[in-house]
Amino acid sequence: MNNYSFLDDYSEGCHADILARLIETNLSQQTAYGHDEYSEKARTLMRKHLGNSNVPIYFVSGGTLANLIIASSALKSHEAIISANSGHIALRETGAIEATGHKIIAVPCADGKLTPDIIEATLASNAHYPHMAKPRMVYISNATEVGTVYSRQELIALSELCKQRNLLLLLDGARIGAAITADKSDLTLKDVCDLTDIFWIGGTKMGALMGEAIVIPNNMLAEDFAFHVKQRGALLAKGRALGLQFQVLFENDLFLELSAYSNKMAHKLSSGIVACGFSLAADTQSNQVFPILPNTLIERLKEKFDFYVWESHDNHTSTIRLVTSWATLESEVESFLARVQQDSA
Amino acid sequence: MNNYSFLDDYSEGCHADILARLIETNLSQQTAYGHDEYSEKARTLMRKHLGNSNVPIYFVSGGTLANLIIASSALKSHEAIISANSGHIALRETGAIEATGHKIIAVPCADGKLTPDIIEATLASNAHYPHMAKPRMVYISNATEVGTVYSRQELIALSELCKQRNLLLLLDGARIGAAITADKSDLTLKDVCDLTDIFWIGGTKMGALMGEAIVIPNNMLAEDFAFHVKQRGALLAKGRALGLQFQVLFENDLFLELSAYSNKMAHKLSSGIVACGFSLAADTQSNQVFPILPNTLIERLKEKFDFYVWESHDNHTSTIRLVTSWATLESEVESFLARVQQDSA
Amino acid sequence: MNNYSFLDDYSEGCHADILARLIETNLSQQTAYGHDEYSEKARTLMRKHLGNSNVPIYFVSGGTLANLIIASSALKSHEAIISANSGHIALRETGAIEATGHKIIAVPCADGKLTPDIIEATLASNAHYPHMAKPRMVYISNATEVGTVYSRQELIALSELCKQRNLLLLLDGARIGAAITADKSDLTLKDVCDLTDIFWIGGTKMGALMGEAIVIPNNMLAEDFAFHVKQRGALLAKGRALGLQFQVLFENDLFLELSAYSNKMAHKLSSGIVACGFSLAADTQSNQVFPILPNTLIERLKEKFDFYVWESHDNHTSTIRLVTSWATLESEVESFLARVQQDSA
Amino acid sequence: MNNYSFLDDYSEGCHADILARLIETNLSQQTAYGHDEYSEKARTLMRKHLGNSNVPIYFVSGGTLANLIIASSALKSHEAIISANSGHIALRETGAIEATGHKIIAVPCADGKLTPDIIEATLASNAHYPHMAKPRMVYISNATEVGTVYSRQELIALSELCKQRNLLLLLDGARIGAAITADKSDLTLKDVCDLTDIFWIGGTKMGALMGEAIVIPNNMLAEDFAFHVKQRGALLAKGRALGLQFQVLFENDLFLELSAYSNKMAHKLSSGIVACGFSLAADTQSNQVFPILPNTLIERLKEKFDFYVWESHDNHTSTIRLVTSWATLESEVESFLARVQQDSA
Repeated sequence: MNNYSFLDDYSEGCHADILARLIETNLSQQTAYGHDEYSEKARTLMRKHLGNSNVPIYFVSGGTLANLIIASSALKSHEAIISANSGHIALRETGAIEATGHKIIAVPCADGKLTPDIIEATLASNAHYPHMAKPRMVYISNATEVGTVYSRQELIALSELCKQRNLLLLLDGARIGAAITADKSDLTLKDVCDLTDIFWIGGTKMGALMGEAIVIPNNMLAEDFAFHVKQRGALLAKGRALGLQFQVLFENDLFLELSAYSNKMAHKLSSGIVACGFSLAADTQSNQVFPILPNTLIERLKEKFDFYVWESHDNHTSTIRLVTSWATLESEVESFLARVQQDSA
Repeated sequence: MNNYSFLDDYSEGCHADILARLIETNLSQQTAYGHDEYSEKARTLMRKHLGNSNVPIYFVSGGTLANLIIASSALKSHEAIISANSGHIALRETGAIEATGHKIIAVPCADGKLTPDIIEATLASNAHYPHMAKPRMVYISNATEVGTVYSRQELIALSELCKQRNLLLLLDGARIGAAITADKSDLTLKDVCDLTDIFWIGGTKMGALMGEAIVIPNNMLAEDFAFHVKQRGALLAKGRALGLQFQVLFENDLFLELSAYSNKMAHKLSSGIVACGFSLAADTQSNQVFPILPNTLIERLKEKFDFYVWESHDNHTSTIRLVTSWATLESEVESFLARVQQDSA
Repeated sequence: MNNYSFLDDYSEGCHADILARLIETNLSQQTAYGHDEYSEKARTLMRKHLGNSNVPIYFVSGGTLANLIIASSALKSHEAIISANSGHIALRETGAIEATGHKIIAVPCADGKLTPDIIEATLASNAHYPHMAKPRMVYISNATEVGTVYSRQELIALSELCKQRNLLLLLDGARIGAAITADKSDLTLKDVCDLTDIFWIGGTKMGALMGEAIVIPNNMLAEDFAFHVKQRGALLAKGRALGLQFQVLFENDLFLELSAYSNKMAHKLSSGIVACGFSLAADTQSNQVFPILPNTLIERLKEKFDFYVWESHDNHTSTIRLVTSWATLESEVESFLARVQQDSA
Repeated sequence: MNNYSFLDDYSEGCHADILARLIETNLSQQTAYGHDEYSEKARTLMRKHLGNSNVPIYFVSGGTLANLIIASSALKSHEAIISANSGHIALRETGAIEATGHKIIAVPCADGKLTPDIIEATLASNAHYPHMAKPRMVYISNATEVGTVYSRQELIALSELCKQRNLLLLLDGARIGAAITADKSDLTLKDVCDLTDIFWIGGTKMGALMGEAIVIPNNMLAEDFAFHVKQRGALLAKGRALGLQFQVLFENDLFLELSAYSNKMAHKLSSGIVACGFSLAADTQSNQVFPILPNTLIERLKEKFDFYVWESHDNHTSTIRLVTSWATLESEVESFLARVQQDSA
């Protein structure tokens, strides 16, 4: 990669404090399989943020692994998951959920967000007993795959509907850091813990080398969970390598700080581009920016930067996607904006 | 852990060179999903050892994950795996293989090792078409779960039988480092690559923080393999974190050096114990030692050391298991032997 | 049921000749598991119709069983099936396909029929390797779930595209009898056998007590198929009970005769209703009729007949669905039409 | 088949009363999917025998289908089944249970029968949490695959242990008719219903053309069961065809009568052979007989009869297996014995 990349939020390694801690603890002998002292400390620190001193927490190495373990542990084989059709499990996990035997009912929705109305309609159109799989879980992502975020009120409404209709609510938090530190968001990790049955906190995209923390507020889903972590190959012998990272991220609120930084860089890009007279295809809610730029400008930007051209907007302009992260260099953001300004001038 | 532990070979972190390299490369932007430069360099280095300049190599974070991806990618649903009943997939993976839909035919065998005769007999007793699952893969571990190793001749015999009987040969190399550097072993990594259809090289137990490298000599098994890595949740966004570790381990033969060291420590324990007049329940072939000691001595050793009491031998003695690793402190081995000697004196 | 039913095409038992033959052969001792003489004779008779003297044929007791055996035997776990979103496997089989581990890519389409263009577009939008399941099979129903049929030219176009794009073509023939004897159809069973990789001929809805015949023109899909029939619980000890039914249905073209009769009754209903001045929501192509009738008339018809009210058309009228079969009594069709006429007069 | 066959108990069609009833009811229009009046009447009749007026009963077409539906509906993916290694699910179902994702823990046992001691030992050796699948169901067959039967006291002991250890007890009743009418048996269908969590009553081997009745005394296992019947392809459109057969079999105790007859024929063979001076390899408990005969006699018998040669006994003699059924001709039994006597004279 010779250009500077705004392709994604996982192009760099991890926050320096994590590497320092790895070195510091490296030769300490620890109990295997997640029972080491770092994992225990990470759990204690996280539980404070979650406002729940007993909630079970498991660390796994990736998001697809988290989602498939949750599906296979929470559901019986006839039970299905309702997801936005833009949902990661529906679109980008190579049928991982189906490979555990479960149907995903993928429904169209605006902005990548499910609503109570959409869920009610989906229940109604999947009620032909016993010829249709039984909807039993609702899957949402926050932030969503298109960068939007749920408000506290929206999550309360989903949570209430799920309780009423005997549905389990799963929140995929690959970008939960960016979501809860978004300007638009009034959600906290504690809210998420209070309002969902199971969710996970993404480390990979927020300063860790790898690792996601599965949190299980609903006790029924916690029963026997460790078997599923092992059965799906996610129980690392050196669980310390995951626990330690979350320990570092949740000491001194580093996790929230890094998340806020990624949003700040997105907003700097977003407002700078708008200031140059260009418009956005979508509101910048978290760490993804979707500006509409002239194709000639896009070509010039590509000489120095990597990013996705999302879709053609009209004959002369296209929407591009810029992703920022905890590691984004502010100087590169400024250099990007300078190039935009040059062209617009 | 206050005592020094001989419980397993994954109680410490990783070799210091790996941490140094992580720091050095940390902020370099890299392509995701295993297409980074460190993974590529690791593959190139490993292929030299394997004597095969094109063999596909995939890195995943754990051994159960490696085994289940291999089973689900290589087999159709009616195909079964023959394994020693002491095999890791048969005994310690929480039904991970069965969860992908495949039957394991677990057969009793001495020393944890399969032989052509055992396989032939298993084929004969599983031939009731179509009422029995079709044996299609043979699973062996080297070193085995009880520390024994296969000779080159033994592996050739298994390989030939598998070709004759249209069976795929999978070698679980969680401890392949200890196996090929064992005194008794005349096998090389190249031999393993020549003689099996698919195998994996364990990093977790040989100096890495985590990570196993799946190697696919049989081209038919390589087709579409990446889909399965992703579908089972093993495709890390920051694949660099795995690739880099194997790069370091295969520069300057570090992998073989660390493996040989773990065996050396085992032999030091083993010969020291024998020199004190005690016997072994099994030959020390790799990095596991099974001495038979008086129960009173065992109690005294437990004051300072952690290890498994394997089984009762007679009224006064028991077999214990001691595992050594790349990180075993020679001083602790000596301290252990001193305590044994004290008692036997 | 006190009313006469047009609800479905499986309300009665089976054609009388089948029962006569069951009695006649009842005490003959036969080899189990589909190797009886009746199954063999059925296969021979069917192969003549199919124009293929060696094509493998397996009998199973139901359509969902046929579909799930085909999916699990033909596909590896990362491979997906493209289906119309009205397809039986996508909508009415309780996630049976997903329960075998495979994703269904359900796509909207007019009239329940897939076209080459829709398939090409689906391939294009599912090409993100390896993050999306690999489309490998195309599933069509003929007649479709809404009663439409494919022309020979349409099937040729699908078949050619599938060959080009390395896709397997599966035809669900639950109502293949009604499809190929439809006025609009120029397809034969031989065409279907020439143009698909695997398909099944429905007995349940065409005169049998139960039973569908899976036909496998593509040799690669035939390999080891019997294992899958057994593994999914479809291998009946008394396979004779299925084979005998197909033997009777394919002697003297009874199958085609009964199918044509069901279409004839549908057309009698259809044209009679139109003659009374009412319109149809859809062309009557096979054995399903969708008239739009005044709600007051629908109420009166319900006093004597059972049928589904499909959907509201406007404030005063609704679309109903009438299904005919090999067993439909012509006198009841006439009685139904008399009531319609009475009201319209 | 030119010879008379003692190969199995499913070589003929079905009891004549069933065929008569099929003819009688053939054109009656019935609700589909098991909600017909014959299925309802069958359930009512069976519930009287079971001493439970509400117990849920589902009809499916075969035994493997019954077993796999039960496993997949009752178990979560980490839960395993304990079975005798001679159990049908372990040995003769092509990995059907594993294909639904569940491990079978197959244990050696005498006479094909599990005991509380064996189960306790199996629990102890499968307790390595969470590295081993969790034993959750116990599978027994009655009569077993080798013709032995459980006494009431034995079943009580198993039932009590299962309740104590939180295990579900599944009884495979493919030959439950022969089991409960065995001379040695003091069990009733009501006992089985009181003592197990779920079981099935085999029709295929006791006078039906096909069909097994799954009975679910444990309410927890009954929840959502219909979804699983449909998902696994077992929900016949014309469920009447199965229900009607059980209706006929449970009117006037025909089921018990036919079962007793099959045992009577087995005992006639057994005692006749013993009377000729030959011995048995195993006690004749139900409808399977295992005489040890001279190889020369076996050759002569094979000229007129079909049966399995089970295993070589010594240089001159072998054990054969003779199976009788509801359809066995007493004249053929006598003819068989005459030939034995001729030779022994």
